[in-house]
Amino acid sequence: MNVHALILAGGSGTRFWPASRRLRPKQLLALGPTEGSLIEAAVGRLSAICRPEHVVVATGKHLLAATQRLLPHLAEDAFLGEPYAKNTAPCIGWAVERIARRDPSAIVIVVPSDQYIADQSAYEGALRLAIEAAAQGVITTLGIKPDRPETGYGYIEVGQALNHGVFQAKRFVEKPNLETAKSYLAAGTFYWNAGMFIFRADTMLAEFERSMPELYAGLMAIRAAAAQSPALEEQAVEALFASTASVSVDYGIMEKCDKIAVVPADVGWSDLGSFQVAWELAAQDAAGNVLPDHAVQVDSAGNLVLDLRDPVPGRPQTIALVGIHNMCVIQTSDALLVIPRERCQDVREIVERLKADGRHELL
Amino acid sequence: MNVHALILAGGSGTRFWPASRRLRPKQLLALGPTEGSLIEAAVGRLSAICRPEHVVVATGKHLLAATQRLLPHLAEDAFLGEPYAKNTAPCIGWAVERIARRDPSAIVIVVPSDQYIADQSAYEGALRLAIEAAAQGVITTLGIKPDRPETGYGYIEVGQALNHGVFQAKRFVEKPNLETAKSYLAAGTFYWNAGMFIFRADTMLAEFERSMPELYAGLMAIRAAAAQSPALEEQAVEALFASTASVSVDYGIMEKCDKIAVVPADVGWSDLGSFQVAWELAAQDAAGNVLPDHAVQVDSAGNLVLDLRDPVPGRPQTIALVGIHNMCVIQTSDALLVIPRERCQDVREIVERLKADGRHELL
Repeated sequence: MNVHALILAGGSGTRFWPASRRLRPKQLLALGPTEGSLIEAAVGRLSAICRPEHVVVATGKHLLAATQRLLPHLAEDAFLGEPYAKNTAPCIGWAVERIARRDPSAIVIVVPSDQYIADQSAYEGALRLAIEAAAQGVITTLGIKPDRPETGYGYIEVGQALNHGVFQAKRFVEKPNLETAKSYLAAGTFYWNAGMFIFRADTMLAEFERSMPELYAGLMAIRAAAAQSPALEEQAVEALFASTASVSVDYGIMEKCDKIAVVPADVGWSDLGSFQVAWELAAQDAAGNVLPDHAVQVDSAGNLVLDLRDPVPGRPQTIALVGIHNMCVIQTSDALLVIPRERCQDVREIVERLKADGRHELL
Repeated sequence: MNVHALILAGGSGTRFWPASRRLRPKQLLALGPTEGSLIEAAVGRLSAICRPEHVVVATGKHLLAATQRLLPHLAEDAFLGEPYAKNTAPCIGWAVERIARRDPSAIVIVVPSDQYIADQSAYEGALRLAIEAAAQGVITTLGIKPDRPETGYGYIEVGQALNHGVFQAKRFVEKPNLETAKSYLAAGTFYWNAGMFIFRADTMLAEFERSMPELYAGLMAIRAAAAQSPALEEQAVEALFASTASVSVDYGIMEKCDKIAVVPADVGWSDLGSFQVAWELAAQDAAGNVLPDHAVQVDSAGNLVLDLRDPVPGRPQTIALVGIHNMCVIQTSDALLVIPRERCQDVREIVERLKADGRHELL
């Protein structure tokens, strides 16, 4: 039984502007507490579970080069460049069809590229349980135990136990309002949907055929074209992405599927969704500051300072804070953001302003 | 009667770090409310009073090139490069000797290069009164009416009126403590010494001879050497600056001189001594922000944002603030400072820290 991994790296979040940009989205940044970019960490976390030649990274065509640069140990054909961003269903369908072509009963692990997981051994344990369940032909997902009534994530309600550590999924629910989120937290049977799915390739293809028949037809067209020539295959991919609707796999497949399993996963998961979270996870000094080595501070506490300027040979750089508290200071070569930590979600307003002003080079 | 101007441009303040640097001191920066650098403004303000060929700019040797670049309409011999920084007395002595050599009865106006004066016509009026007084052989100074008990400046106490708008100076006093400064303010007969002096060249040379005979001997050695060759003159200048003590003209000459006149000058003077003052003087928007055109702000007020990054062709730059109040954000290509306006004097602590850490490239 071969285990494959599909790393979803098409994200283009604006919550980390100016660190994240159109051509340098979150997953390419070193926002986590560990060395290196989030996508490197995501790939690295799977190294005990699947062989490098079974890793596929799907990203936008415009991000292919930058993504490949960070993962030089992966072969060129490990990278799928989506011609258009059409959410996760078309992309997962495409990747799964490619895997199933050669190995229909292969296990596929789908994970986002821009999350943080603190407990590697718990993560591997949860994946192994999920792989066992998936081998039986059940789409399996890791469920993250909520610790707060979060309204930013989808939830999965679990039912009866299927096996040790594996539960039946009763339903997938989309982002709730606060009241509903509170009731989910109180019920204790709801888990966060972190977008991590484990399934057999043929199981998933069958679900595409059942729930998204048009998309499935496109996938079969790709398969038929691939049997003729790589050029025809590329045309078929282009045709599918050009015409297909933008649909998430959660909405298009999971919510319509009645044989899903959940492995509750207490793995120290974080979606790393804001500068605030990046600060919380990072190694803070005694004053609660997260500073680059070159920074200098006086009477300052609780700050997150990121410096992503291009280094200039022979020209040292610094960032100096005096009397600054609980701020995010995000410096790139062409942009600077200063924002209180507690307002860091409002960086979107800056991005909207820049868009409205037609200042696309800064996005 | 020729009027000459000596612009003192040897300053190397640290209060504007990282805008000001060892090789880019305050006077070379556009910190004032008007276009262009402070030194350009200082030279420009004198254009109705003295001809360009009678302007002399004295600065440190290491600043000569940068200073000349800002004042391309001045001849090369208008610039004096001090081999060592020895405060104002040696430098004024050197410049005055050069002027006196050709024109002993020339009037010399000495002004700092890094101040701001709002009321040009009042300034010209005060200078004309001072020139008249100086022509009589009296060292004359502009006195700035204090509007607060400032402890950062020296004061001049005035006595009886000598002429319309011209008073006898009773004494020069150095920076007072707060209590004394308050008594000066209450007395109404004390003016700030803004370092603007007007005198006949021969009058001043006679004062050097009387109060600073060693320095005077050095000046005469320069004169004798100049009569032989420019190379010898340069050697004599080097020898004088290498050996002379670091003394201000206030301490070395003014405080010891008993024939000084004061022209009270209500000219909208500011020493532009801090980011706070730069913010006060600058054109603020409705929210009290002083921002570069390219900046974007949301819910931010009372901020001073300076961007002195080198422009990169084809690469726009921005600075974005969200929810920031009463801050100074000073951005250069290699350094960033974030500091509350009310603490802006404490930038010195950063400079001290960088010095202590041996990070001289950032100074």
